[in-house]
Amino acid sequence: MSTDAVAETVLRSNAGHDTVIGDAHPFAIIGERINPTGRKKLAEELKHGNYDTVKSDALAQVAAGARVLDLNAGIPGFDEVAMLSEMVKIVNDLVDIPICIDSSTPEALEAAVPLAGGKVLINSVTAEQHSMDRLLPLVAAHGAAVIGMANDEDGISMDPDVRFACAAKVVENAEKHGIAREDVIIDPLAMPIGAAPDAGTAMVRTIARIRGELGVNLSCGASNISFGMPGRHEIDASFLTIMIANGMNTAITNPLHRPVKKAILAADLLLGHDDFGAEWIKDHRAEVEAAKLEAANA
Amino acid sequence: MSTDAVAETVLRSNAGHDTVIGDAHPFAIIGERINPTGRKKLAEELKHGNYDTVKSDALAQVAAGARVLDLNAGIPGFDEVAMLSEMVKIVNDLVDIPICIDSSTPEALEAAVPLAGGKVLINSVTAEQHSMDRLLPLVAAHGAAVIGMANDEDGISMDPDVRFACAAKVVENAEKHGIAREDVIIDPLAMPIGAAPDAGTAMVRTIARIRGELGVNLSCGASNISFGMPGRHEIDASFLTIMIANGMNTAITNPLHRPVKKAILAADLLLGHDDFGAEWIKDHRAEVEAAKLEAANA
Repeated sequence: MSTDAVAETVLRSNAGHDTVIGDAHPFAIIGERINPTGRKKLAEELKHGNYDTVKSDALAQVAAGARVLDLNAGIPGFDEVAMLSEMVKIVNDLVDIPICIDSSTPEALEAAVPLAGGKVLINSVTAEQHSMDRLLPLVAAHGAAVIGMANDEDGISMDPDVRFACAAKVVENAEKHGIAREDVIIDPLAMPIGAAPDAGTAMVRTIARIRGELGVNLSCGASNISFGMPGRHEIDASFLTIMIANGMNTAITNPLHRPVKKAILAADLLLGHDDFGAEWIKDHRAEVEAAKLEAANA
Repeated sequence: MSTDAVAETVLRSNAGHDTVIGDAHPFAIIGERINPTGRKKLAEELKHGNYDTVKSDALAQVAAGARVLDLNAGIPGFDEVAMLSEMVKIVNDLVDIPICIDSSTPEALEAAVPLAGGKVLINSVTAEQHSMDRLLPLVAAHGAAVIGMANDEDGISMDPDVRFACAAKVVENAEKHGIAREDVIIDPLAMPIGAAPDAGTAMVRTIARIRGELGVNLSCGASNISFGMPGRHEIDASFLTIMIANGMNTAITNPLHRPVKKAILAADLLLGHDDFGAEWIKDHRAEVEAAKLEAANA
């Protein structure tokens, strides 16, 4: 575990509820479910203006311990600007945790971010100059925080030093726009371990440099690591544990995947963020009760 | 993950099979099952000279991936010297992996160690002067390796600096007896997290100092951490993952506990010791086949 402290990132819901991301706090799950990519049913609903699954996903993820909700409305050929804006309004009305507004379409972010109160997380800017020039003013104007991806015009490098340089570029450009260090979270980009045997060790080295030299929080899309492998949830759980042990305090993942959720709770317990295991024991009891109910209904 | 390299510990079975413990190798599970503590059936068998469970435990643990087998015959009021010696002979005849001879009774170690060929691991010496004075000559005389526990005459301290001082004392005393640095493995002593919320973070700090300043391998009895908590195997699995991420290369644990085994395999995969996931995929297929067989027989 790195001993270099990182700055704390404070996000705020529309109604004023804070989620703090930092070394002194439990791991912050950013719930990934509200995203039509690879989810045919959700995509069909959104195309027809139906937000029922968005609502149930929001409630289920909050109940499962998400402390931020990612919102993504990207469906090629459909009106992402309108759909992402609608998601923001609906989720803000339904639950009281901060949101992470997720799009690769600048217009969608520019339309949706002003609709959200509190302090949102914008997902994401890259180290490409056109991305930083367009999105960092939006982050600054709305007092938002932002996820910076460690890739640039040359794509995603497998070299930890190149990824570090991308991260540093985002942090420097953010500062030029008046965005505080603590409002930048870097995603060092987890790659599939089945294709690149050094994908995990590269992440460990990249995280250490980014924490030590830039002092910012780190996040990742955890499930990329297990792409193409069997037993994905268990690999994701182990990967997150290794990342947490190396100083990652938040990630975009699915709290409804039990191995992932339990790994995060166990890491909180073992790293001193769940005194006497109150959260661990509560989760364990709920699991036992759920199994009993399932058995009774079988 | 620590970047300081540790010395490699090489253990050898009676028939010449090596198990290497070190940063460049997969995690080495020391199978903990052959131990009558808390196992009534095994204790009763041993009292009657029956070694059937010892044999089946040896075979099952090797099949589940143990790379060393711990042998413990401690039953208060019974002849540990004879039972431990018998265990060594039986297990050496049955399987071809190194053994870890485990006793708190010096006479039992002194009788059993000379019966084992190859290069055994002796479990354990403490930093108490009487323990080191009696056991380190045995380690040296038989060219064995030894586990040094980080406690001394004052007991087990919760202060990482005191535990480090105990570890340093064992390493120094071992050197005086001509035992190489790489033949000492330190157990920093995992304490129950349910009683001491800083038990995990204390381990992380202690490991970092021992690796960085003494350059020796580390081990632990992993299941101590979860004592008194529900969901023990999952806590043990997470704890081992955090320890591995911080540079622990071996532990005494149960490879038949699936969450533990899978966490270790996943860590090997993610930290570059299982290229393209060959071991992970093999284990996953075996699990799927076992589930099918179970369903067919249900």
